[in-house]
Amino acid sequence: MKRSELEESALLQDDCLVIECDLTVIKEPLVDETVEVQVPPSNLSDNIGNLLKTGEEADVAFRVKGEVFPAHKIVLAARSPVFKAQLYGPMRDKWRHDITVEDMQPAVFKALLHFIYTDSLPSMEDLDDDGNKEMVKHLLVAADRYALERLKLMCEGIICKSLDVESVATMLALADQHQCSRLKDACVEFLVSSNRMDDVVASQGYVNLKRSCPAVLVDILERVTKSRKI
Amino acid sequence: MKRSELEESALLQDDCLVIECDLTVIKEPLVDETVEVQVPPSNLSDNIGNLLKTGEEADVAFRVKGEVFPAHKIVLAARSPVFKAQLYGPMRDKWRHDITVEDMQPAVFKALLHFIYTDSLPSMEDLDDDGNKEMVKHLLVAADRYALERLKLMCEGIICKSLDVESVATMLALADQHQCSRLKDACVEFLVSSNRMDDVVASQGYVNLKRSCPAVLVDILERVTKSRKI
Repeated sequence: MKRSELEESALLQDDCLVIECDLTVIKEPLVDETVEVQVPPSNLSDNIGNLLKTGEEADVAFRVKGEVFPAHKIVLAARSPVFKAQLYGPMRDKWRHDITVEDMQPAVFKALLHFIYTDSLPSMEDLDDDGNKEMVKHLLVAADRYALERLKLMCEGIICKSLDVESVATMLALADQHQCSRLKDACVEFLVSSNRMDDVVASQGYVNLKRSCPAVLVDILERVTKSRKI
Repeated sequence: MKRSELEESALLQDDCLVIECDLTVIKEPLVDETVEVQVPPSNLSDNIGNLLKTGEEADVAFRVKGEVFPAHKIVLAARSPVFKAQLYGPMRDKWRHDITVEDMQPAVFKALLHFIYTDSLPSMEDLDDDGNKEMVKHLLVAADRYALERLKLMCEGIICKSLDVESVATMLALADQHQCSRLKDACVEFLVSSNRMDDVVASQGYVNLKRSCPAVLVDILERVTKSRKI
């Protein structure tokens, strides 16, 4: 309230303003902190993950190079629009219980299912460094195939952190092929800011990249040339 | 290595120990932070929650006082052992698609389903303070009925924070009836540390508590008496 408004109002009597306060004193004691209830963290992913672990009540089975993976259609459909179309779309075969997956290693499909059911990557402790990198690359391809955007980003993030002269060209081709804009940006950034372009050009990945996606290379080489001039 | 072991070993020559270090200098630049991949938070509960929202591919329907709630058996079974027994146990009826739920309000069953699919409580913004308290009480009962331990703890936690002289006796009876040890402890603590036992005794909840679970009261009254003597 403005001073002028107050001075003109009826609230002011004999140049005095009376403010009345009601004060309530709550005598009830607060409940002791020792009995505060600790709610455990969400166990949704554990519960859904258990379905995969036990395979109980599975209503579909995937055959991947001889290995069989039982699964639950509704979980797959909830998580992946590609599985949804395959399992419930107009082209589905109601009575088909077995689905064969081509062009994928069983270990990769297993990791894919783990992500679908739990929203996390499986432990890759039993893989060596190279096996780990291969798995992440294949998972990125699988994530793109089944439109699992979050898994794709997780794989992109892991690959970004392990870029080196030998692998960068291969990863750039991978990123270009599977529309991974962040990984592509990281590869370009790596190449432009690296002073080892000669080593990169000598790598097998570069030879393949030049053959498969020459257009991508043009932009990069232009940028590298420009940065060297400065 | 112990000093005595070192002094006796062949590693020590002319009273000297030579330590050789290999140092590798990595010249490759780190990838710029601007291209670091941001992975969004888990969307598992959103994805599973969408199944409930859309009701797509539901394979069971619950009738609750005239209202019908479509649901997915595998999700219910993954989350609640009681639903698992009901839907997949030896006593199940394979061809029964409709299940009638007795002794529950439709709004409570709806909130229960929301928790099962998303692991969170639904928004209760449209309820007033009393309606909110009633809902939490009923949800606690439903959580106990379907063995949803985490939901039960969430409800206990909310009730603990709103205990007052009028409600504490009723909540103590509720806690006793549904084996909520934390809520029971909080109620006892409230009664013992409160100086308004006379007001509590005058409440309707106390009358009911005295009738339904007198044994619980004996312990409390003993403790109150003891604390007053001091």
